[in-house]
Amino acid sequence: MGRQDFASLTFDDLTVGDEWESPGRTVTEADVVLFAGVSGDSNPVHMDNEFAQGTMFKGRIAHGMLTASFISTVLGTRLPGPGCIYVSQNLRFRAPVRIGDTVRTRVVVTSVDMERGRVALETTCSVGDTVVISGDAILVAPRRPVVQAAE
Amino acid sequence: MGRQDFASLTFDDLTVGDEWESPGRTVTEADVVLFAGVSGDSNPVHMDNEFAQGTMFKGRIAHGMLTASFISTVLGTRLPGPGCIYVSQNLRFRAPVRIGDTVRTRVVVTSVDMERGRVALETTCSVGDTVVISGDAILVAPRRPVVQAAE
Amino acid sequence: MGRQDFASLTFDDLTVGDEWESPGRTVTEADVVLFAGVSGDSNPVHMDNEFAQGTMFKGRIAHGMLTASFISTVLGTRLPGPGCIYVSQNLRFRAPVRIGDTVRTRVVVTSVDMERGRVALETTCSVGDTVVISGDAILVAPRRPVVQAAE
Amino acid sequence: MGRQDFASLTFDDLTVGDEWESPGRTVTEADVVLFAGVSGDSNPVHMDNEFAQGTMFKGRIAHGMLTASFISTVLGTRLPGPGCIYVSQNLRFRAPVRIGDTVRTRVVVTSVDMERGRVALETTCSVGDTVVISGDAILVAPRRPVVQAAE
Repeated sequence: MGRQDFASLTFDDLTVGDEWESPGRTVTEADVVLFAGVSGDSNPVHMDNEFAQGTMFKGRIAHGMLTASFISTVLGTRLPGPGCIYVSQNLRFRAPVRIGDTVRTRVVVTSVDMERGRVALETTCSVGDTVVISGDAILVAPRRPVVQAAE
Repeated sequence: MGRQDFASLTFDDLTVGDEWESPGRTVTEADVVLFAGVSGDSNPVHMDNEFAQGTMFKGRIAHGMLTASFISTVLGTRLPGPGCIYVSQNLRFRAPVRIGDTVRTRVVVTSVDMERGRVALETTCSVGDTVVISGDAILVAPRRPVVQAAE
Repeated sequence: MGRQDFASLTFDDLTVGDEWESPGRTVTEADVVLFAGVSGDSNPVHMDNEFAQGTMFKGRIAHGMLTASFISTVLGTRLPGPGCIYVSQNLRFRAPVRIGDTVRTRVVVTSVDMERGRVALETTCSVGDTVVISGDAILVAPRRPVVQAAE
Repeated sequence: MGRQDFASLTFDDLTVGDEWESPGRTVTEADVVLFAGVSGDSNPVHMDNEFAQGTMFKGRIAHGMLTASFISTVLGTRLPGPGCIYVSQNLRFRAPVRIGDTVRTRVVVTSVDMERGRVALETTCSVGDTVVISGDAILVAPRRPVVQAAE
């Protein structure tokens, strides 16, 4: 059985209710440092352990946008998959992610707009049973398989 | 009222209309590689130059969430500044950011909710005159100066 | 249709002839610098542009092990996918990969050993029509879906 | 014969039995994160602490190719040294490398092929007394000193 077709979903493959849950990603100190470097976000809530001890979080937390980037990863590599284009993303930061927490990201297709080629998905990041980010995304999915599009 | 001289605003310092525009940040190939690493997002629109040449963008574009992270940076380091906590962020990806583009990020306070301690801001990333991300953010601003909280 | 099962292949799902070809990965200067940092490999063929101009390659080439790591990526994330364990990998470096080249990696299942739970795959990295690394891998594939194993 | 005093060996300097053992390299969480970024390998055995706890390894392990890259480092910077070109590498992953483990890499010249300009080496990575990777490499060594070639 060929396997080249199982990850690059095109628009026509998508159905309301399709879902994907990522394997976990443990957020490490290295991730926080690298994200701070690329983004420039040196908010002491993320970078200053002494300051962070004095906050309501009692320690450093990961950048919300770092966790949010895991949503982009699932959308861009799994569902809809390679080749899709982001139109919009709403994010609600509901609980902190601490260094050492393992984040799982779940996306579920909630609507498919054939005319405009757009797909909407509910996007949720969780640590254990706690939802840390909820929101929804709209994307343009590719019309043809990536392997063909690349030729 | 200009606010470009502060570093750490507390909730009581914020007024509707306060604004901050970041200096530019040129998005490099190294940024895209590092962001792909931290996020895990290897969508070929970002990582595969040959594939990206065949898309409507005619070349690799930066991750939308990488550009969005610059918003978090302004919010977390300038306005409101260190110590603030993200509640929500809406993002609309309006134009691609290419490797080599220089992004400026502008945030403007649009409402201040004294009772809940929350501030809303309009958030805009631009490359030259082109808006690449528009959206709005809600944050909880710290009640006291960071320098006191850290003592 | 549920989609949670389409990437985490277990041993029982694998059949001789199953194959996966990755989307391309353009090797950037940043990749070479980061790989040099993590590995410590500062061979001037990779890091010294002036030296490299004087070699048969007429310029810097990427570390062979950097390209080889793309094989591990396909094996560990697509086929067989998350949870598999590397037993061995043979690599034959057949042509250089230059900065800017886009590498595609293809793996094909060549044998499945039910008793020992092992799968063998032919592994090939190419730039355009040129094979840059050929070889074969042996892995232990997980017996159950990752989502169940993680519970 | 000891060879620990050289920096750049040419083909004519190499003799069967020449060997080099690297100083140790402690594999950190940051190394694993960066290697995952460059390679794209987000296998949860490396990146998901909760998943990894449930595996036979009882925790995250480093990418096998990350450890293997240390072999390339010794070959490319010490023995044979700068300027050498990889022909092939066989790798057998014999034991896991955990975050925090310190890896030493030993290479020993096992044959010298004057006509084809090739040298074969036995390549071994160890953590303490445990061999974690065994294998062998074939390289083309430079014919002249690097300092001359660079002039």
